[in-house]
Amino acid sequence: MNQHVSICEVGPRDGLQIVHQRMATDVKLRWIAQLAASGLREIEVGSFVSPRLVPQMADTGEVVKGALEIAGLTVCALAGNLRGAISAYEAGAHVVAIPISVSDSHSRANVNKSTDEQVEAVRQIVDWVRAQSRPMRIDAAAATAFGCSMEGDVPQARVAKVARALADTGVDCIALADTVGYAHPAQIRSVVRATQDAIGARLVKLHLHDTMGLGLANALAGLEEGIRSFDSCLAGLGGCPFAPGASGNIVTEDLVFMLESMGFGTGIDLQQLIGARTLLAQALPDEPLRSGVAAAGIPKTFHPQAVQA
Amino acid sequence: MNQHVSICEVGPRDGLQIVHQRMATDVKLRWIAQLAASGLREIEVGSFVSPRLVPQMADTGEVVKGALEIAGLTVCALAGNLRGAISAYEAGAHVVAIPISVSDSHSRANVNKSTDEQVEAVRQIVDWVRAQSRPMRIDAAAATAFGCSMEGDVPQARVAKVARALADTGVDCIALADTVGYAHPAQIRSVVRATQDAIGARLVKLHLHDTMGLGLANALAGLEEGIRSFDSCLAGLGGCPFAPGASGNIVTEDLVFMLESMGFGTGIDLQQLIGARTLLAQALPDEPLRSGVAAAGIPKTFHPQAVQA
Repeated sequence: MNQHVSICEVGPRDGLQIVHQRMATDVKLRWIAQLAASGLREIEVGSFVSPRLVPQMADTGEVVKGALEIAGLTVCALAGNLRGAISAYEAGAHVVAIPISVSDSHSRANVNKSTDEQVEAVRQIVDWVRAQSRPMRIDAAAATAFGCSMEGDVPQARVAKVARALADTGVDCIALADTVGYAHPAQIRSVVRATQDAIGARLVKLHLHDTMGLGLANALAGLEEGIRSFDSCLAGLGGCPFAPGASGNIVTEDLVFMLESMGFGTGIDLQQLIGARTLLAQALPDEPLRSGVAAAGIPKTFHPQAVQA
Repeated sequence: MNQHVSICEVGPRDGLQIVHQRMATDVKLRWIAQLAASGLREIEVGSFVSPRLVPQMADTGEVVKGALEIAGLTVCALAGNLRGAISAYEAGAHVVAIPISVSDSHSRANVNKSTDEQVEAVRQIVDWVRAQSRPMRIDAAAATAFGCSMEGDVPQARVAKVARALADTGVDCIALADTVGYAHPAQIRSVVRATQDAIGARLVKLHLHDTMGLGLANALAGLEEGIRSFDSCLAGLGGCPFAPGASGNIVTEDLVFMLESMGFGTGIDLQQLIGARTLLAQALPDEPLRSGVAAAGIPKTFHPQAVQA
């Protein structure tokens, strides 16, 4: 069994995009540097989307360039279309992440395209990227894979079908995203298995939200189905645009605590990771910062895995 | 596989005992009635301990008597010694729950007795109760079974040994309690298995705290090891006396959401259960009320199990 788990910190993107306060570019870069120093090896630092729609992300080009200075860090940026992917490439991102809603209604509401049209857009991105001189990893995230705030239930067969179509475009990795946080552990197991049946090891990652308080239970279910890569967010920053007061992404600190306690190595120093909350508290004083282990303190029963040099 | 899960609501005891504000007896009883009306069939309504030490519990005799008026409700009260158990019996409680710390240091700090001495006290309680005319169920909770804020790690072999000793006293049911909330899912699996090896089906319940944010992940691990009974607390009331800002018991609303989503019947109407928070918010305006599903609202993908008449 693979005892290493990769965590991609998405706070600078999924967290900050929902926060009303703006974080200055230099503060973002200091925060990203602290996250990387704690041992995070992959960070989604921003998104190349319309600055009119998401003004918090307007400086993503600069943030990518700054983050590339951090040795050993894989710099990831989100893009919704070819134009965004080209911007990511030009900025020098190592990875471009592209969301594709499995739910047609959600897809149309988000990017004004059906799911099939968005899969086609991914194919164009892949073709463009593969024609460039520098390699860039392409991750596709099947959004609303566990339910949709508009359509409700999302059939598992449809998730597997969309994952298959995404795999056929030639992307490197596919993630399943519980975009609205409706998933439960039995569903995670079942949808992960169906997707593994469809695309095998191309299914790499889960992107989970803690909306209903089930985030880490869902991560556990995924872990036990063989998933070894998760998105998460320091302090669970960001909340949920659909539900004021609700939680955001699963909390990186608590995820690291769970994984390391269970014998999985993450390469992350938990105390140092918790230290990166201080900057967040100063920069975003109005945001609630979540995390059990940060509030309670690391217990004396915590025996982390040795960090590989 | 048994598809029913029993939830014992411990808010009126484990929740209120930590809260600084006092809740009046009639308010407690209205709250308990609302909890019962939502489908909860077992409620720990208070504890027979020194009112000097825990003034919030001084009215437990009255609360037990009032709760006995609620048809179909199993009324449980906590007691730390024979005197408390006699009070529970005299008040008419259906169940007396007795905590026994597996950690010697925690036991001495809490009840001024070693673990062995407290097991002996349980034996005296069993002998006394069995000699009375009315039956009263006796539940023993092996506290600090997954770690201790004083001793740190608690050896699994010691948990199994204490569970065996408790089973030998003749108690009806044994619970494992993660009193300080240090447990992780792999440990839950391992300690539950070791305890099942020692005492079989006498291990009935898990009592979990959400201190590190792992509460529902731990519940999932227990569920998958065959546990079909959990303590939990509406709104995760109470927090942790050792860590200001930390969470209390696992949240009943979110536990019900998880279980019912996964196909386990709890007999509880989730919307009605969430409704019982209103009284709590009015009675304890300074207390944070937790719960993902209460904050976000029940999603349209939620398909609860049919409630058995």
